[in-house]
Amino acid sequence: MSRKVKCIEGGICAPKGFKSAAIGCGIKNPEVKRLDLALIYSEFPTVGWAVYTQNEVCAAPVRLSSSYLKSTVPRAIIANSGNANACTGHQGMLDARTMASVTSRALGIRQREVQVCSTGIIGVPLPMGRIEPKIVPLVESLGEDGDPAAQAIMTSDTHQKSVSAQCKIGGKKVRIGAIAKGAGMINPHMATMLCFVTTDANVSQAEIKAATQEAVDHSFNCISVDGDMSTNDTVIVLANGQAGNNRITRSGKGSAEFREALTEVMLHLAKKLVSDGERVTKLVEVNVRGAASHLDAQRVARAVGNSQLVKCSWNGNDPNWGRVIHAVGYSGARVKEEMVEIHFDGVLAAQNGLAAKTDIDKLSKAVRKDEFTVTINLNIGRGEFTLYTSDLSPEYVLFNREEYALNRKS
Amino acid sequence: MSRKVKCIEGGICAPKGFKSAAIGCGIKNPEVKRLDLALIYSEFPTVGWAVYTQNEVCAAPVRLSSSYLKSTVPRAIIANSGNANACTGHQGMLDARTMASVTSRALGIRQREVQVCSTGIIGVPLPMGRIEPKIVPLVESLGEDGDPAAQAIMTSDTHQKSVSAQCKIGGKKVRIGAIAKGAGMINPHMATMLCFVTTDANVSQAEIKAATQEAVDHSFNCISVDGDMSTNDTVIVLANGQAGNNRITRSGKGSAEFREALTEVMLHLAKKLVSDGERVTKLVEVNVRGAASHLDAQRVARAVGNSQLVKCSWNGNDPNWGRVIHAVGYSGARVKEEMVEIHFDGVLAAQNGLAAKTDIDKLSKAVRKDEFTVTINLNIGRGEFTLYTSDLSPEYVLFNREEYALNRKS
Repeated sequence: MSRKVKCIEGGICAPKGFKSAAIGCGIKNPEVKRLDLALIYSEFPTVGWAVYTQNEVCAAPVRLSSSYLKSTVPRAIIANSGNANACTGHQGMLDARTMASVTSRALGIRQREVQVCSTGIIGVPLPMGRIEPKIVPLVESLGEDGDPAAQAIMTSDTHQKSVSAQCKIGGKKVRIGAIAKGAGMINPHMATMLCFVTTDANVSQAEIKAATQEAVDHSFNCISVDGDMSTNDTVIVLANGQAGNNRITRSGKGSAEFREALTEVMLHLAKKLVSDGERVTKLVEVNVRGAASHLDAQRVARAVGNSQLVKCSWNGNDPNWGRVIHAVGYSGARVKEEMVEIHFDGVLAAQNGLAAKTDIDKLSKAVRKDEFTVTINLNIGRGEFTLYTSDLSPEYVLFNREEYALNRKS
Repeated sequence: MSRKVKCIEGGICAPKGFKSAAIGCGIKNPEVKRLDLALIYSEFPTVGWAVYTQNEVCAAPVRLSSSYLKSTVPRAIIANSGNANACTGHQGMLDARTMASVTSRALGIRQREVQVCSTGIIGVPLPMGRIEPKIVPLVESLGEDGDPAAQAIMTSDTHQKSVSAQCKIGGKKVRIGAIAKGAGMINPHMATMLCFVTTDANVSQAEIKAATQEAVDHSFNCISVDGDMSTNDTVIVLANGQAGNNRITRSGKGSAEFREALTEVMLHLAKKLVSDGERVTKLVEVNVRGAASHLDAQRVARAVGNSQLVKCSWNGNDPNWGRVIHAVGYSGARVKEEMVEIHFDGVLAAQNGLAAKTDIDKLSKAVRKDEFTVTINLNIGRGEFTLYTSDLSPEYVLFNREEYALNRKS
């Protein structure tokens, strides 16, 4: 976090007027009673916005929630793990709607104020018989501990992801809390993930919409683990105004501070998603500089960050700049080979498109770290982009080999 | 091969009037004297064409050979393995030119008639001191055994790839021979590979150009192992007319037969490249049908065939159609989820975008084979495309972890 944005305790419930809860329904396996259903709720009216997956094949809860968002400001979020409710047809839509309606009745709000999210296996109907009876007890257990909700949305994540921060806007303390889940399918255009953000900032609906999109663009849209895009990706931001600051209008006074804090919170979680990617051993920051355009810089960063061969070399602590430059070459960006410069964690690996005279042990040491940067300067323009990505490990492949058959059999 | 195209013995030297040879220079390691320099030569004047990598960062031999091709018909090919002569700057161009000039003098042909190819590590200058003295002995050893040349161009290939075939054109027997190397970096827009084709067909220069492009489009441009594009990919076709058939003009009499045979020979080798990809255990044919356009079909095939998560599931014999449909969704193609149908090796996995009622054991059995098809019918148009691809194994990652540092240290 920057100097102006301070980490605080409390997670998703750190902002005033937000409550959360979680419960176990045995969604993936009726025998295993881990937390798998989460609820987040603002006791006060809210403004809010959400950004969803751009996958043409999107899950029922995404279709339902995005249709609700068109007409109604969200105030509560119900989310389950263990089953994505994707590729589940008409029944999937009915089930998502049931989750919203039962939740809204128990909370005493309108059905369309409830955003519904699901994450987990694709193509298997939700076990509504196990979920539905748990919604009322879930609502009754709403409290100020944000951890259970953070745990309930996890799938193959190895630990819960939660953050809360505070900044000053117009002399008032404003709090932002957030939880996220990631692990597999982390990639361009909305990593496969869920992220729920609460804030007690007093902001206009127009500002929350713009600020959410901007923060997502500078955080979750800058990470990639495996280049795959999920059917369920969702980021939702709720703001209830309880901080008592003067209302922040779109790009108005306080907007810069608010957006900075919101972006920092999301970027913090985005990096955690990458480093907790399935069997990931490295967090790699790919900095592209000197590209002909921002888009070209992005093309280069994504080509390098998603190259299987480049990711394998990182896993092996191999400062293989040849694989990096060949990915630069096929990225589709304008490239002058003889201008390209590559640094591994600040150590020069290639200059003018040629091997630098740097000692190989120095280069190997640079990529041996758990976190390092790869800086690629194309030296032909001013376009820049940073992508946070990971290595590719043999364990990732082993982990992702078998899933569907096992689930169908269980 | 089809009914009309018959496999014959002889490899690259099966067509009349072609000779080849290979020699060991110790290019990668002076201590190891494996064959690493190959020569192919037509005793008679030729027509010919070549297709090169579309990578913006391309190797010196690619730059040199493509400039030669602009003005001159190729008649000989000199190719080394162990070093790609890529990212080697001005010295790389001088070295490639030396390979062409020494070869041409020894053969008594013009320098520009020699195509130069290199494959291997990027960013390390060619050891010309070890290569140059071997060129004259190489030329002196030209003979009719095509196997040494096939062996000399191998890098991480586990076995040599060679094929020869015969067809009848205008009542005359026409022969086509070819060798190829592949292994790593096999992908869209010219798999990372070398392929050299000889034929004694009597064809016009215009026809050989069109036939070569068409055959490449229907073979090497339809395979993908890891989605990476090399700096050195090259396909070269030489034809010397010794079969004595009436000259085939562009799209003229005999052209259809010739192109069919040329395509079959290339497709045969292309599939071998995939199944011999680094640590690949499966050859998977991704058939996309019913797309809105040919381009959309290609997008879907490439998204599915290059998805890390899909490839992992194939490695684990997991009939995970959910991962397939999610890759379909982010491919960029027009998709109606409720129309999508997926078969694994002819067994229905999903219909109308939903899980089919097929027994899971039957589906698992379908993907347990070493070779199987995945057929995706979008059911909205008539666009079709077939991609030959592979699984992703833990061994692939292990194999590709460390290369550069090891080579720099050797």
